[in-house]
Amino acid sequence: MGRVGQALTRLVLGHGRRLRLQYACLADSTGFVWLAEETSDEALRELLVHKENGRKLVDQPLGHRHGELSPIEQADGLEGPVVLVDCTASDEMTPMLTEARQQGTHVVLANKLPLVGPLARYQALTGQAPGELRYEATVGAGLPVIRTMEGLLATGDEIQSVQGCFSGTLGYLFSRLEDGVRYSAAVRDAWRQGYTEPDPREDLGGLDVARKALILARRIGCAWELHEVAVEPLYPAEMSELSLEEFLQGISTLDDLYAQRLAESQAQGKTLRYRAQVSGSGCQVGLAAVAQQGRLGALRGPENIVVIRTGRYSATPLTIAGPGAGPEVTAAGVLSDILDIVGKG
Amino acid sequence: MGRVGQALTRLVLGHGRRLRLQYACLADSTGFVWLAEETSDEALRELLVHKENGRKLVDQPLGHRHGELSPIEQADGLEGPVVLVDCTASDEMTPMLTEARQQGTHVVLANKLPLVGPLARYQALTGQAPGELRYEATVGAGLPVIRTMEGLLATGDEIQSVQGCFSGTLGYLFSRLEDGVRYSAAVRDAWRQGYTEPDPREDLGGLDVARKALILARRIGCAWELHEVAVEPLYPAEMSELSLEEFLQGISTLDDLYAQRLAESQAQGKTLRYRAQVSGSGCQVGLAAVAQQGRLGALRGPENIVVIRTGRYSATPLTIAGPGAGPEVTAAGVLSDILDIVGKG
Repeated sequence: MGRVGQALTRLVLGHGRRLRLQYACLADSTGFVWLAEETSDEALRELLVHKENGRKLVDQPLGHRHGELSPIEQADGLEGPVVLVDCTASDEMTPMLTEARQQGTHVVLANKLPLVGPLARYQALTGQAPGELRYEATVGAGLPVIRTMEGLLATGDEIQSVQGCFSGTLGYLFSRLEDGVRYSAAVRDAWRQGYTEPDPREDLGGLDVARKALILARRIGCAWELHEVAVEPLYPAEMSELSLEEFLQGISTLDDLYAQRLAESQAQGKTLRYRAQVSGSGCQVGLAAVAQQGRLGALRGPENIVVIRTGRYSATPLTIAGPGAGPEVTAAGVLSDILDIVGKG
Repeated sequence: MGRVGQALTRLVLGHGRRLRLQYACLADSTGFVWLAEETSDEALRELLVHKENGRKLVDQPLGHRHGELSPIEQADGLEGPVVLVDCTASDEMTPMLTEARQQGTHVVLANKLPLVGPLARYQALTGQAPGELRYEATVGAGLPVIRTMEGLLATGDEIQSVQGCFSGTLGYLFSRLEDGVRYSAAVRDAWRQGYTEPDPREDLGGLDVARKALILARRIGCAWELHEVAVEPLYPAEMSELSLEEFLQGISTLDDLYAQRLAESQAQGKTLRYRAQVSGSGCQVGLAAVAQQGRLGALRGPENIVVIRTGRYSATPLTIAGPGAGPEVTAAGVLSDILDIVGKG
């Protein structure tokens, strides 16, 4: 139960009664707490504060260690539809999620990892099952990306390509470069302000964007593995070996390279974006010079954009843009998935 | 059964079997045809061709005049969920739509008129009823505008404002002005190519955009009447009295006005758009100078854009853009509503 799980709990505490949602179980990496139906909002709020203070669920009076009780067996006793929500960043959940769907429990993911593992595991997870599967929050957080694609596919449209900028962190970085800031200074600033992962190479390497691109590619029927996504990282391979401190020092050597690439782009009326492209012919993630006045070029700061071309939206695509990261909008994406499922009875 | 109804029928003929949809009745202004469950796709296709050739349903061998049979009574015998789809541009349907929902028939609208009539009728139509009501196609055609707003509201967000460009025709017009074409020439071209209504004053008057703005305003809880939407038409009131021919002649007198307004905007790095603005404090539709590099200024041609600001999406809004008119995307919006309802069982 990390920041997204906490934001979701706060949302449900605010609106859950109206929505007739009821927490049955809260889990983190240490253990879980089983909540009785009569558990008050006050008790749930106490658990939330406990987590927000950086403490472990297993240390709660009601906390159990994983393995002590089986959540899936406990869920058997629940009335109404049961939704298992994965807001972790762990790949270990996948077998449990797959099993849960087979047993009729619905699954909602903010966690990308179960969707980008080996194809056979992806197919087992996403195949026909009594329980539904939704994962809106995995791409663009609360932006209606996956549901829009689902709607197009359901009404018989054919998705020809999806492209866009799926990383708020990298969007922020390129806005700073446009403002004339050096690459190394922009990265260090973003890192210092907590806009990047603790090691900024996780953002700069492009893997997170590649995962999102693969999720979209697989959704439109491309049976690819993650290693088949062509990724251009924003630092040379040899810098992977450095310590974090060495890396943050060493990136000054990249300043001229990116300043020059930006200047070359701008000389042609273009600017730089970290772009993902998905189509039936392949999946690429990397630096691209795009028209300043175009859809991607017009982005500012951490905004995400998804540009969908289909049989119906061909000459002019369908575009969705907005903030695509942060615990609150991610939790809202998860909640909208839950409500879609629960609304169906 | 006009162009949208025909496009919808073509869509259902293409995908209806997979979607387990079945036409029960087709209607136009002259009458209706009741289709038995065993009616083949071939028979439906013949009816469609009949309509596409500009003929009337009442002239079909199976055609009935309105009043001869009650469609609602006939619908009583149907199995599974029944959806009444209104793709007309008539206000006369409203009582029947309201009654249908009360009797458990679901209602899907591409027709804006039932949603913009007197408030009491709107409230009767949209109030609690056993049958659901959806109207995605009324704003932005197939763009996911209403469902995105519904999702935000359902998850407890607060919609603070919606603004955008909701008229493809007026978007096209302002792109031509930016290309240096005179106002009168741009209007006459658009009219000649069939991009406007038969009388272009219907587009230029802004009423259609005002209707869309009111639909969004009412959805976020503003209890306003259509006359409370402030509308700035793109021709002076005295030109309403002219014949179509006189009007198309007379608009040359407006060329200097709009050329000057555009030049003034451009001198400030802005451009002109026909903008709708909806917030709790009011609803305005009219000409606006907007930043060339902003979201509205970046629009090209007939593209629509909807910019939603909420509690969660405040500093940076949620934006949806794309083609917002045309029978095919409108029909797709209708079909997505039908599938949402049918998917719920």
